[in-house]
Amino acid sequence: MLIRHADPESTEPVEMDGVKDVTMQVMVGREDDAPNFALRHFVVQPDGHTPLHQHDYEHEVFVVEGTGEAECEGETHIVKAGDVLYIPANDLHQFRNKSDAPFRFLCLVPMTFDCGKPTPGS
Amino acid sequence: MLIRHADPESTEPVEMDGVKDVTMQVMVGREDDAPNFALRHFVVQPDGHTPLHQHDYEHEVFVVEGTGEAECEGETHIVKAGDVLYIPANDLHQFRNKSDAPFRFLCLVPMTFDCGKPTPGS
Repeated sequence: MLIRHADPESTEPVEMDGVKDVTMQVMVGREDDAPNFALRHFVVQPDGHTPLHQHDYEHEVFVVEGTGEAECEGETHIVKAGDVLYIPANDLHQFRNKSDAPFRFLCLVPMTFDCGKPTPGS
Repeated sequence: MLIRHADPESTEPVEMDGVKDVTMQVMVGREDDAPNFALRHFVVQPDGHTPLHQHDYEHEVFVVEGTGEAECEGETHIVKAGDVLYIPANDLHQFRNKSDAPFRFLCLVPMTFDCGKPTPGS
């Protein structure tokens, strides 16, 4: 059994076009020999955002702390700690933090997509 | 995009040999057409526990609230809110709540195991 604490201090900057002030840590991933899906911890700072993008695999998300905007296919919802989101494959989506406190969430992805390619950040 | 709040009041009793005072809600599962993995919300009441069991698929777990005992392959660790656990397939495991407050966690499973059988509780 592997046990790790989701600590904002252990997250690292996400370097990706369209990202602003987002850090991430893979909590369970391919390096742990997890076979099917990866669990990542994201922290979005105030005024930060993930890229507005889409890809051929789904997200399952759990909001750990704070409040953020979740945009998906042109619709935006305010989400808060305790909310669970499902973003289907190919939907255009973005997370934004318009609050004055960190917005933290778990984002899970399948370990592979498109017939076996390793999912980025898995 | 699907958004649901992980609310203890929405969980239902888990009926299974070896379970005591555990409730659960599938937050994202096969009925939502999620293709690869299911996200479930569990609440273990004080003195409650999940079964001591093993199965041919892994768990990825995030502790949402409270403190519990996580036993895996004979070793027991105290886990708390913010901890992430990875329990490999076939490891014998159990969660117990020895505290006086609810112990809540997310537990994720692959949607299928053993060459395509639907995972229980997915």
